[in-house]
Amino acid sequence: MSAAARGRADERGARLAALEEAEAEGRLDEAFAAGEMDAGEPTERPRISCWSATDNGVHAIDLETGLALFDACQAAKSPIDHSAPLVWIDVACPREPEAEFLRDRLHFHPLAVEDCVRGRQRPKLDRYPGYFFLVMYAAAINPARDRMALHEVHLFLGRRYIVTVHDHRVAEFGEVLARWRADTAAFSTVGTLAHALMDTIVDHYFPVIDHFSDRVEEMEAGIFEGRSEQGGLERLLNVRREMTLFRKVLGPQRDVVSTLLRRDLPFLSSELSLYFQDVHDHMMRVVEEIDTLRDLLTGAMEAQLSVTSNQLNITMRVMAAWSIILMAVTLIAGIYGMNFHIMPELAWRFGYEWALGLMLALGCVLLVYFKKRNWL
Amino acid sequence: MSAAARGRADERGARLAALEEAEAEGRLDEAFAAGEMDAGEPTERPRISCWSATDNGVHAIDLETGLALFDACQAAKSPIDHSAPLVWIDVACPREPEAEFLRDRLHFHPLAVEDCVRGRQRPKLDRYPGYFFLVMYAAAINPARDRMALHEVHLFLGRRYIVTVHDHRVAEFGEVLARWRADTAAFSTVGTLAHALMDTIVDHYFPVIDHFSDRVEEMEAGIFEGRSEQGGLERLLNVRREMTLFRKVLGPQRDVVSTLLRRDLPFLSSELSLYFQDVHDHMMRVVEEIDTLRDLLTGAMEAQLSVTSNQLNITMRVMAAWSIILMAVTLIAGIYGMNFHIMPELAWRFGYEWALGLMLALGCVLLVYFKKRNWL
Amino acid sequence: MSAAARGRADERGARLAALEEAEAEGRLDEAFAAGEMDAGEPTERPRISCWSATDNGVHAIDLETGLALFDACQAAKSPIDHSAPLVWIDVACPREPEAEFLRDRLHFHPLAVEDCVRGRQRPKLDRYPGYFFLVMYAAAINPARDRMALHEVHLFLGRRYIVTVHDHRVAEFGEVLARWRADTAAFSTVGTLAHALMDTIVDHYFPVIDHFSDRVEEMEAGIFEGRSEQGGLERLLNVRREMTLFRKVLGPQRDVVSTLLRRDLPFLSSELSLYFQDVHDHMMRVVEEIDTLRDLLTGAMEAQLSVTSNQLNITMRVMAAWSIILMAVTLIAGIYGMNFHIMPELAWRFGYEWALGLMLALGCVLLVYFKKRNWL
Amino acid sequence: MSAAARGRADERGARLAALEEAEAEGRLDEAFAAGEMDAGEPTERPRISCWSATDNGVHAIDLETGLALFDACQAAKSPIDHSAPLVWIDVACPREPEAEFLRDRLHFHPLAVEDCVRGRQRPKLDRYPGYFFLVMYAAAINPARDRMALHEVHLFLGRRYIVTVHDHRVAEFGEVLARWRADTAAFSTVGTLAHALMDTIVDHYFPVIDHFSDRVEEMEAGIFEGRSEQGGLERLLNVRREMTLFRKVLGPQRDVVSTLLRRDLPFLSSELSLYFQDVHDHMMRVVEEIDTLRDLLTGAMEAQLSVTSNQLNITMRVMAAWSIILMAVTLIAGIYGMNFHIMPELAWRFGYEWALGLMLALGCVLLVYFKKRNWL
Amino acid sequence: MSAAARGRADERGARLAALEEAEAEGRLDEAFAAGEMDAGEPTERPRISCWSATDNGVHAIDLETGLALFDACQAAKSPIDHSAPLVWIDVACPREPEAEFLRDRLHFHPLAVEDCVRGRQRPKLDRYPGYFFLVMYAAAINPARDRMALHEVHLFLGRRYIVTVHDHRVAEFGEVLARWRADTAAFSTVGTLAHALMDTIVDHYFPVIDHFSDRVEEMEAGIFEGRSEQGGLERLLNVRREMTLFRKVLGPQRDVVSTLLRRDLPFLSSELSLYFQDVHDHMMRVVEEIDTLRDLLTGAMEAQLSVTSNQLNITMRVMAAWSIILMAVTLIAGIYGMNFHIMPELAWRFGYEWALGLMLALGCVLLVYFKKRNWL
Repeated sequence: MSAAARGRADERGARLAALEEAEAEGRLDEAFAAGEMDAGEPTERPRISCWSATDNGVHAIDLETGLALFDACQAAKSPIDHSAPLVWIDVACPREPEAEFLRDRLHFHPLAVEDCVRGRQRPKLDRYPGYFFLVMYAAAINPARDRMALHEVHLFLGRRYIVTVHDHRVAEFGEVLARWRADTAAFSTVGTLAHALMDTIVDHYFPVIDHFSDRVEEMEAGIFEGRSEQGGLERLLNVRREMTLFRKVLGPQRDVVSTLLRRDLPFLSSELSLYFQDVHDHMMRVVEEIDTLRDLLTGAMEAQLSVTSNQLNITMRVMAAWSIILMAVTLIAGIYGMNFHIMPELAWRFGYEWALGLMLALGCVLLVYFKKRNWL
Repeated sequence: MSAAARGRADERGARLAALEEAEAEGRLDEAFAAGEMDAGEPTERPRISCWSATDNGVHAIDLETGLALFDACQAAKSPIDHSAPLVWIDVACPREPEAEFLRDRLHFHPLAVEDCVRGRQRPKLDRYPGYFFLVMYAAAINPARDRMALHEVHLFLGRRYIVTVHDHRVAEFGEVLARWRADTAAFSTVGTLAHALMDTIVDHYFPVIDHFSDRVEEMEAGIFEGRSEQGGLERLLNVRREMTLFRKVLGPQRDVVSTLLRRDLPFLSSELSLYFQDVHDHMMRVVEEIDTLRDLLTGAMEAQLSVTSNQLNITMRVMAAWSIILMAVTLIAGIYGMNFHIMPELAWRFGYEWALGLMLALGCVLLVYFKKRNWL
Repeated sequence: MSAAARGRADERGARLAALEEAEAEGRLDEAFAAGEMDAGEPTERPRISCWSATDNGVHAIDLETGLALFDACQAAKSPIDHSAPLVWIDVACPREPEAEFLRDRLHFHPLAVEDCVRGRQRPKLDRYPGYFFLVMYAAAINPARDRMALHEVHLFLGRRYIVTVHDHRVAEFGEVLARWRADTAAFSTVGTLAHALMDTIVDHYFPVIDHFSDRVEEMEAGIFEGRSEQGGLERLLNVRREMTLFRKVLGPQRDVVSTLLRRDLPFLSSELSLYFQDVHDHMMRVVEEIDTLRDLLTGAMEAQLSVTSNQLNITMRVMAAWSIILMAVTLIAGIYGMNFHIMPELAWRFGYEWALGLMLALGCVLLVYFKKRNWL
Repeated sequence: MSAAARGRADERGARLAALEEAEAEGRLDEAFAAGEMDAGEPTERPRISCWSATDNGVHAIDLETGLALFDACQAAKSPIDHSAPLVWIDVACPREPEAEFLRDRLHFHPLAVEDCVRGRQRPKLDRYPGYFFLVMYAAAINPARDRMALHEVHLFLGRRYIVTVHDHRVAEFGEVLARWRADTAAFSTVGTLAHALMDTIVDHYFPVIDHFSDRVEEMEAGIFEGRSEQGGLERLLNVRREMTLFRKVLGPQRDVVSTLLRRDLPFLSSELSLYFQDVHDHMMRVVEEIDTLRDLLTGAMEAQLSVTSNQLNITMRVMAAWSIILMAVTLIAGIYGMNFHIMPELAWRFGYEWALGLMLALGCVLLVYFKKRNWL
Repeated sequence: MSAAARGRADERGARLAALEEAEAEGRLDEAFAAGEMDAGEPTERPRISCWSATDNGVHAIDLETGLALFDACQAAKSPIDHSAPLVWIDVACPREPEAEFLRDRLHFHPLAVEDCVRGRQRPKLDRYPGYFFLVMYAAAINPARDRMALHEVHLFLGRRYIVTVHDHRVAEFGEVLARWRADTAAFSTVGTLAHALMDTIVDHYFPVIDHFSDRVEEMEAGIFEGRSEQGGLERLLNVRREMTLFRKVLGPQRDVVSTLLRRDLPFLSSELSLYFQDVHDHMMRVVEEIDTLRDLLTGAMEAQLSVTSNQLNITMRVMAAWSIILMAVTLIAGIYGMNFHIMPELAWRFGYEWALGLMLALGCVLLVYFKKRNWL
């Protein structure tokens, strides 16, 4: 283990310790929001956290209490039955014990639980008796590597509870938690909470779009400055790949949001549907932006090809013109380098000057000719 | 601050003063129409203006009166209830106070108001209780920079009022205002006013299309005149980008107009629907034109590539032919430049002429050969 | 004014005079059909003509009578009410007075009349109370310039009348008029007449398709004959542009014909719908043919690119091979042209022959080598 | 007339005579099946044949009897009314008299008859009162020219009769006729016969697909063997064109078969619909195969382009490397060929060897350098 | 027969013998699962096997018993009628006798049986009275040749029986059989068994996707390492072809699974439909993944082209620069190699050094110039 690696490990240990402390105090939302998490890095330890809204705000509660409240939620008659408090259970980095917890303690369907653990699902909305299972992707730009990261997020939406499952730290969750804490009254139903989560996730797409947009603009600018080195092409291919992967996820996700609007979902009050319509509009905008960017990128690549072949043309013309000029002039030198006994010019008083003049004249004539043909 | 910059600032101040004066007199429509506004430049000062139609024409009114009328409009029972006059409130360049005004005084939905302030929305038509919220884009060619500018426009359409929100000066608004003033009687409902606005916006797309069309034609003409310099390619990429951005906006905008036709909207009398059908036809035509232009541009770019590679072929053939001719002739000179003691030709009486003749003959034979193979 | 131009003007005057005469005699159909019209050229004078079917055939009638009959048509109770005769009013090259005539005298909707005068509409079918407004495009190949011309045609279809508006002479109208005259009995309703017009217009697309098809075939043939000169590429780009423009018009036109079939139109008897189905089939065929041609053209262009880059490869190999051969041989000449005091070969009896032999041998070895590598 | 042409004419006459004889004996199915027909060649003589199923099998009958039976068929009350025998009338190469026969004697609709005579229709299914009119295309590979031929086929399907019209000999008809003869009982309704015809036509598409598939595979194999000569490219373009033309026909034909399944057609018993479903599956498979092949072909063409430009790269590197090596070495020879009075090396004892050594050394150094850069 | 071939034959004989033995003991699932089968190789011998679930597990039974049970299944009143045991009959590599068995003994429809024997069907779901006929494709990567193999699989799904028909050994069947044996109780209906089969088949697509994904990534990595040799291109074309073929099969297969969900199928209890929804999601994911991969591959190929033409540009610039430098320097040597009697430099004391210096200076100037223009 090198010194540098050890240094990194120490640093990481310190950060994890700070996080643990934050969590211990139920300050995970702060931990989330304080920029301490690394989007590209999985949380290492499986962990289950609970929050619940009471009259004096939102508090982190221990699992025991959380489960008791969860069971009470199950008994709630309708999404707006305020006798049961809202409960949010967050499962991070689920392994076999967590899967068992979801399956046997929370009684979620084995298929949904399997999806949570195996991951790599399509965005989708599955209706199970008593709850919905939602798969979405959060996107972020990893500032260190300048790459997009997609994090799969699973949500179980019940009458008065919400259960989130994720593998990586998702900054969006921390943000929503902070907003819930700040204004508990505004989040009276699961629908509001679900909207806040989806809205935040979709809002975080825009910086990603901007990132892509910047890359495409750089690329476009680079074409005409002759910066066509390999590095640029490699970055371009990366951006293109990331945009393709992002687009793959966005398609079904847009369908999920459309479904939320069309279907008659029990936790969607008519007032909320305006808000989900808003999420849908943003979603549509993201899809259109990314399609436009892909279009622009294709255009830029074609322009690049055009520029390259244009430059090749110019190079070849320069080479052709100068080759012909130099060869023609060299030919004259070659002629007067022949060893014939009788070559009148050789004996001339100004023969040498005559030859040099001939070369110069021929060279100039050709030069002018090629200039006129625009080859030089 | 350089002298030139100061000059520009002075000039700008003068223009703003003139505008202020015009507005003070309720002559904003003239200001709009007089070509004083700069499509590419945001209005600097947030501002709220009101107009109302009375028996003796359309007049600019102060905000107080406007709001009183607005409240009366709210109470109007139907779109054709002529007891309440038509009111148009225009909010330019909304900042926080204006947003508050829209939200708290006019009671528009927070989501719609947020869209107005944040901007960069998709064209859309949202139905809120009692009014519609419409997002459209006005397009113009900035004559100085020869570029397209898209300006987002928001409309709230109520029973007897219309509220417009925009960031930049929109020439189309001035035009409609002038028409309203000229023939007040023809604008009896909000529908007529909304149609006039949308119709004018769509009509202003055609000069943009013509601008693109001219660019594409120039490009096509340039291909065969050998004008394949970088500048042209750069302009082409710009036009292509602008067309892509324009197309991105047009798609959902067309859907908005279709929705207007299909849905049973309260402010759309059956007689008006003929007029909206007309707007829809124009919208469709714009979309088809832009798609055709993109098609033509793609065709032109492919032809450009073909021409470039064809020219490369020609260049290479010329170079190959002349290289071979000159090398072959130089070889003869090289041979008679060798220093062997016994080289019979060197002693010949016409040895020099023989060598020159040989060169000429070889050169001519090759020249004819390459001419025949069409390389020269 | 040059003599040639004057000659052309004279010639034109004569032709116009002949046409006037023909029209005066109600022989416009003959004028139409006699090949005197020039598809690419607008009729210069706005003009309104009338024809009506009586028991003893179809006759050109003066406008007064025409209008009286038109008013009678308006009163007709159903499309098959034979008490009113069929009337065809043709408005050529409408200017402001003609627009006024359409709007105020014939009482057509201002929007439709505006479309007629402004032109450049999408093909469409608008339903107005009491009549239909139809926009179509007639296509023709201008034999002189070998280019396609599209002529916009507007039709008002009422109970017992048909009003056509057009800017250019449309050969198709003359043809239908001639058929009406020849067999008046076969055209008993407006539907029959409208079918005849649309059928003729669509039938005239096929020569255009054939023209495109010929161009594409020429292009395909030209690829492998090495005819890749610029002229060909320019023609190709023209054909492609024309096909794109034609396609743009065909799409909505096909939708118009589909609408005619689907909608329950009063002038379409069930027996006629078989005939309109036929027009629809032909329309579909035209669209499919043009799409196929575009496909073929794309294929040809790609093949062209392939051929060009293949030829470049061949050229470069030839050049590379010969350059290397000639340079290598020249090197030997250069070596024996050095001026070292002691160079044994120079003094050899057959030194010169040795050098020549060496050159020949080296050249042959290289030649054989390149032949084997298939570079020559 | 040359001897060869006369020979061909004789041969043809003999074949025609044999065919006539076969037909006279009602053995057309044998004629069809015996490989005597040439798919690429129109039958020269218009001809009408009849077959009818009686208790003791299928027999060719004369036209008189056929027409009598046809009239009886018209009177049949339902498709399964076995009182009327099944009649098949085949019209080959219809000219005006045959068209008149179809129109006036068999009372088919003039539009359908016109389609039969004019040909070049889209595949379609038209419903006329009392019968259906079906247009399909039979495909075959002409073994001599290795090209695909498409033959238009028209079918009139009535209650108890089937009338086929075609221009070229269609092997598929002969096959169905033979199957009918072999097992008359299996063909009890028009539906069975129609299914047999369509099934056979679609089954004959598979050899065509295989032919295309072989061509594409050859092409793919050829790319990496460096066989990029023009001939191959020409064949490729031909295959591509044929696939495009085939695809153009397949699209609407698939729709026809779908329509057959969806619509409630009187001659389609529920049991038969399983069989038509089978035809539909095969049709879908053909379409998917051809689309896949087109995809593969596009991929192969792109790979071809890649290979070509890769080879150009290699060629240019070889040429660049050798040019530089030879020029550098020649430069040394040129230097020692200069005529300066004082050039020490010239007088050295081993000056010549020194020069040659220098050349060799320089050449080797450059050679190694270029080998390392992978240019050679 | 070479020794190697004989060796292979022996080896094969031994393996077949082992398989026979395994089958004889009803251990086919083990045979399937033990990796003995070779995905790319058809089973040589037609064979019919039966399994049935009894109270004490699943057992291989002989054909007689199987058929008796099959007949009992036919009499079962509903899919959940547990009076009849579940029967699975597997037909491997059907030839004429097996087809007869399916047709005459099991009474399947001749069309379905023909599809089984002929193979090369599209994935589809056909409804026959009393049973469903399902065609699917299993995919596997042949580890030896690194190629994808698609194996057609036919399923007959009845009330209480399932009949599978296949040509090659399908590992998925063995897996399902093993699961059935391990937990007989979990497979109470045909639906569960069908789900298990389809689920396993679709799950086996993911390794194929991963295989393609690896190939594409290798390809992307190879572009910038300059590994553009032919071998890579050939592999790429293979991957592309396989992906195209796989995609061709996936499209209709996805439709089949959608149909399973939409249609009201008797063997699909509502609880099962959740599981089929899961299969559908996976199917969708496979399709999206393959489309994304094709997209990425296209991007990589375009980048490849860009890199190649970029490298050509670089090569040509190097060549142009060095050609011009060497030619210019050689020209000086040529000039001083001329034989004029009066050439002052020749007599200079440091003439030779002057010439060499001139050459060096010219070379350096040009070198610096080209370095500055970035050509070297």
